[in-house]
Amino acid sequence: MDKQVVLGIDIGGTNTVYGLINSEGEVIHYESIPTRGSEPILDLIGRLDSRVRKAISVHSEIEGLLGIGIGAPNGNHFLGKIQDPPNLSWGNVDVVSLFNERFNCRVALTNDANAAALGEKHFGIAKDMNDFVVITLGTGLGSGIFCGGRLLYGHDGFAGEMGHICIDDQGRLCNCGNKGCLEAYASAGGIKRTIKKLLSENPESSFLKRLDGEKVDGLLLDSEFDNGNEIAKEIYTYTGTKLGQGLAQVATLLSPEAFIFYGGFSNAGHRILDPAKKSMDRHLINNHADKIKLLPSGLPQGQAGILGAASLIWNT
Amino acid sequence: MDKQVVLGIDIGGTNTVYGLINSEGEVIHYESIPTRGSEPILDLIGRLDSRVRKAISVHSEIEGLLGIGIGAPNGNHFLGKIQDPPNLSWGNVDVVSLFNERFNCRVALTNDANAAALGEKHFGIAKDMNDFVVITLGTGLGSGIFCGGRLLYGHDGFAGEMGHICIDDQGRLCNCGNKGCLEAYASAGGIKRTIKKLLSENPESSFLKRLDGEKVDGLLLDSEFDNGNEIAKEIYTYTGTKLGQGLAQVATLLSPEAFIFYGGFSNAGHRILDPAKKSMDRHLINNHADKIKLLPSGLPQGQAGILGAASLIWNT
Repeated sequence: MDKQVVLGIDIGGTNTVYGLINSEGEVIHYESIPTRGSEPILDLIGRLDSRVRKAISVHSEIEGLLGIGIGAPNGNHFLGKIQDPPNLSWGNVDVVSLFNERFNCRVALTNDANAAALGEKHFGIAKDMNDFVVITLGTGLGSGIFCGGRLLYGHDGFAGEMGHICIDDQGRLCNCGNKGCLEAYASAGGIKRTIKKLLSENPESSFLKRLDGEKVDGLLLDSEFDNGNEIAKEIYTYTGTKLGQGLAQVATLLSPEAFIFYGGFSNAGHRILDPAKKSMDRHLINNHADKIKLLPSGLPQGQAGILGAASLIWNT
Repeated sequence: MDKQVVLGIDIGGTNTVYGLINSEGEVIHYESIPTRGSEPILDLIGRLDSRVRKAISVHSEIEGLLGIGIGAPNGNHFLGKIQDPPNLSWGNVDVVSLFNERFNCRVALTNDANAAALGEKHFGIAKDMNDFVVITLGTGLGSGIFCGGRLLYGHDGFAGEMGHICIDDQGRLCNCGNKGCLEAYASAGGIKRTIKKLLSENPESSFLKRLDGEKVDGLLLDSEFDNGNEIAKEIYTYTGTKLGQGLAQVATLLSPEAFIFYGGFSNAGHRILDPAKKSMDRHLINNHADKIKLLPSGLPQGQAGILGAASLIWNT
């Protein structure tokens, strides 16, 4: 077995997760550190450098670093740059060159949702699939798309912006400036807006008041749903129905075998995927209806991203 | 040069076009015959057989038939079957086997829009593109999609149903049973409905009365548009705006280099593509806006389909 490892990094708005991964896809060392997006990116690179050196020295079985794979919001595979990432102050930054200068090894970049899709393909639930879509449900909604066994990049590396598929031309205003984008409904941010809307209609609801915080309490929402709380049901049914409309758009075009859900808010599982499936099938043409699976990720939380990022090095 | 030819066939609802095509993509013999979709498919195959034998005997430079490539509505590449084609009475029919039995050579099938996309890729305006979408504007709206240099089939061969992307959840009822499908607006059938709608609002318009026939008179519409007729302008602006909404959905997901327009109704050219471009760019997120070209097909009318069908044999 190859004794070298690849450093897989998943840069997020709040935390950056990284792992040392061998050629079998085993995560030998795993850690999460704050991204500190208000600092220059060299701050993050410096902290990663010292921690990774330390980790390698501790694991005597590791004989060296073969390369680094990075998944990051707005990471462009073709250009090797992160471009104006949301919630990070870095502007346009040539991460591939910066990591290469510091670590002196091969470096490859893709966006965070593509990294998750690569993780599912090489090490997860999509091993035997050639056409599938990984959807990351977090603050926003991202997607990584496999077509015919290969990641879809589009002509400029910006394909897969499924969060900005329009599901209602007169709908909610999205951060991108357009109306009715899928992520304005089907994401933690979208659920927050749904809670505010329901609260304005039911100002006395103590449950909605508890939910209406800076961050949506997913565990509370899930447990209340399981207890039969009608408002919790309404929140997930509404969100799932909107999600299903977006899935139908994508399925009509791509005819994937499955949609795979990843990221914090995907833990809602069947509570959101059941209404999503129903809505998707209702919006599909006959050829496609009832043939496309909605699956939760099979990888440990947080690992699809680093495994997929590492596969940029291991699998090319 | 190879002296063998490939028979490229483009089966349409009304007419079937076929050509004998050499390895350079030159159409040595070209003809159009009625499809006669109410007869069994063996009627069409029999007529093609006798005509093709005759054509080959006339062209002494041809040394034999290497294979047959077929583009047809609802043609499934994976299964080799045409499945419930609209306007044809054939049900599910195994065309690959039937042609193979009759002609005793290699036979490959794809759908009509995919054939047009293959034609543009191998012989037309998309030669140097890896990511593009060919849109066939006829009675309906079809699409053939190239991603990363390869035709997109999806996991079951049914990808590319762009005519059934939803652009208005409360919109026009489509033949497929859903509401607001793109093809209910941006196709000859869609324009017919727009004309009827305008006529109900302007029952005295002699221009609209002339247009409101079994088949939309595209030449009349174009010449009146060029003469500054406000109603003709309204028809194309409305249709182009709806088309642009659909293009934006697809571009957000696939990030293609260009959309290429093919088929009778695409002859409207800039009259429909200008408002479509404006609407597309308005609906795109910043990453994509103003980067995607809308182009008319560069191939002679009717030839993209047979050239693309032939490439199924020549280019594999």
